[in-house]
Amino acid sequence: MTDPSSRASFVELDRAECERLLALHDVGRLAVVADGAPHVVPVNYATPGGGVVVFRTAAATILTEASLREVAFEIDEVDRATHSGWSVEVRGFGRDIADAVDAESVRLRGLPLVTWVPGERQQWFKIVPATVTGRRLTPT
Amino acid sequence: MTDPSSRASFVELDRAECERLLALHDVGRLAVVADGAPHVVPVNYATPGGGVVVFRTAAATILTEASLREVAFEIDEVDRATHSGWSVEVRGFGRDIADAVDAESVRLRGLPLVTWVPGERQQWFKIVPATVTGRRLTPT
Repeated sequence: MTDPSSRASFVELDRAECERLLALHDVGRLAVVADGAPHVVPVNYATPGGGVVVFRTAAATILTEASLREVAFEIDEVDRATHSGWSVEVRGFGRDIADAVDAESVRLRGLPLVTWVPGERQQWFKIVPATVTGRRLTPT
Repeated sequence: MTDPSSRASFVELDRAECERLLALHDVGRLAVVADGAPHVVPVNYATPGGGVVVFRTAAATILTEASLREVAFEIDEVDRATHSGWSVEVRGFGRDIADAVDAESVRLRGLPLVTWVPGERQQWFKIVPATVTGRRLTPT
């Protein structure tokens, strides 16, 4: 059986559109694998473009170690009234840039990345994107 | 260095509050592990209470098989103006209830779970929660 909502239109977003949407937002959800199980939490982020995502965590959280492996990152915008919206997913590899002195890491740590959560957030990570994909669902 | 936002208040939500918030929403993000890597996508969901999350997928997607293992599910609400919001995370085990004839599965498939995405969504899953946790960040 098909839902009444199946008249909606569901399209893949191209890479440029995904990167544009990433640049417009500052909160996403980071998914990591810890002890074989997934874990997903909201994080503040910034992007220098190219699908790269920069975020910060406190030291010694579940995210600190798990962020150094394969990670996924998602942003979305949902309109519950019209049952429409979009989402972008970045999948890739987390890299610690907290102490890295290469020019790229220093530049990333200069991004305007405000974390809303109180406390120190001195662990800086970047996600090196392997894939950047997105979808938009529009009502018809 | 501590952010200016560190005057915000960050509190854990109790289980009852998490379940209440789950019942108020209908879109969340499902995180699964596929080939060792995390994957996070928005899904429509319903809950019968108790932290149980019911969602549907199309057959033969990346989610279909991965949803049968350990999964995580997240909802949140964010106010970018005040840098506040909350999030709830359900971590547990995915179970296929598409063809299950036990009373509980039949009851869950009767939940008002509308999927916005076009196409058939006849794979029904439930998440049996192992942990249900949440946090609220309020500006001070």
